[in-house]
Amino acid sequence: MVETARRREIEDAASVLFRQHGYPATSVRDIARALDIRGASLYAHVASKEDVLWSIVDRVARRFERAASEALAAAAGPEDALARLVRAHVRAVTADVGEASVFIHEWRHLSETRRADVLARRDAYERRFRSVIGDGIAAGAFALTDPALAATFVLTALNGIPTWYRSDGALDPGSLADLYADLVVRSLTEASP
Amino acid sequence: MVETARRREIEDAASVLFRQHGYPATSVRDIARALDIRGASLYAHVASKEDVLWSIVDRVARRFERAASEALAAAAGPEDALARLVRAHVRAVTADVGEASVFIHEWRHLSETRRADVLARRDAYERRFRSVIGDGIAAGAFALTDPALAATFVLTALNGIPTWYRSDGALDPGSLADLYADLVVRSLTEASP
Repeated sequence: MVETARRREIEDAASVLFRQHGYPATSVRDIARALDIRGASLYAHVASKEDVLWSIVDRVARRFERAASEALAAAAGPEDALARLVRAHVRAVTADVGEASVFIHEWRHLSETRRADVLARRDAYERRFRSVIGDGIAAGAFALTDPALAATFVLTALNGIPTWYRSDGALDPGSLADLYADLVVRSLTEASP
Repeated sequence: MVETARRREIEDAASVLFRQHGYPATSVRDIARALDIRGASLYAHVASKEDVLWSIVDRVARRFERAASEALAAAAGPEDALARLVRAHVRAVTADVGEASVFIHEWRHLSETRRADVLARRDAYERRFRSVIGDGIAAGAFALTDPALAATFVLTALNGIPTWYRSDGALDPGSLADLYADLVVRSLTEASP
């Protein structure tokens, strides 16, 4: 097996364990056991447990960043941009709910420097939502509200998806993306009296 | 110190530790150390670590249940009911963000029977949101959408509050309650074309 495939296998096994038990409660030995290899063999592929978490978190962060960039590049106006951002986020989460869950809930366990990197990227990601909402308010398309609070409201709802979504359930990712985009765009849109 | 006061002191110290490190990573010894007493002394007041978690979870669950009942009793129509449910939930969370966080994130670590009890009560609580949303759709006040999915959307956004809200921050609980109620009611309300 080539090194990258082995490495990815390790990350996938770790991802399942991190999600299930949390990063602190998962040991390198647990990861090795899940792959039926010895802890020492695992260290031939990864430098540390934190290194594995970083690979997962960085990969998922890139997926979200790319999805948001594509959404914004294709958008026509603030309402369309917000709907596209939401659909892109839902698709990025549902592409791998387990990994997304590790990204959302376990990144705080990274070492200082990496945590700062992720925090800055999360802030930049959230600013994209905030900025689209601010644009919509300025254009009169959205209700007068606090763009930062509205972005937090939207992103916490989106980040809750891994806590309840089942990829083998009745709701397919596309329908979820559309329904959530509708809820979010309406949440910013004043109903005419 | 009377027994109930001592017991509450133990629960408050445990709540801080459960929130910070998670229930599994917190030991009875950690709780005792936070209170500057010995582990053995702690057992004079509580039967087990799980017993402490149960007291916290049950107390917060009651707070949410009471708040929702009062909200619904006072409501005039589905829009008002939904706004009142949201404001009541936000106020129940912000009343003690730490405890609310333990309730939301750590209840799964309870023993089988207690977990089943909490799950049933969480379901009943979510049904109140679903039912108000369903009523609003039936009455033509809300947009045609899936009431269960909309309730999940709303409750995940609300349950995200302890991850970011700071009681010493600029946003007071009342303003947060009003702004979130507006976002939620709008999210269900079709803008006229």
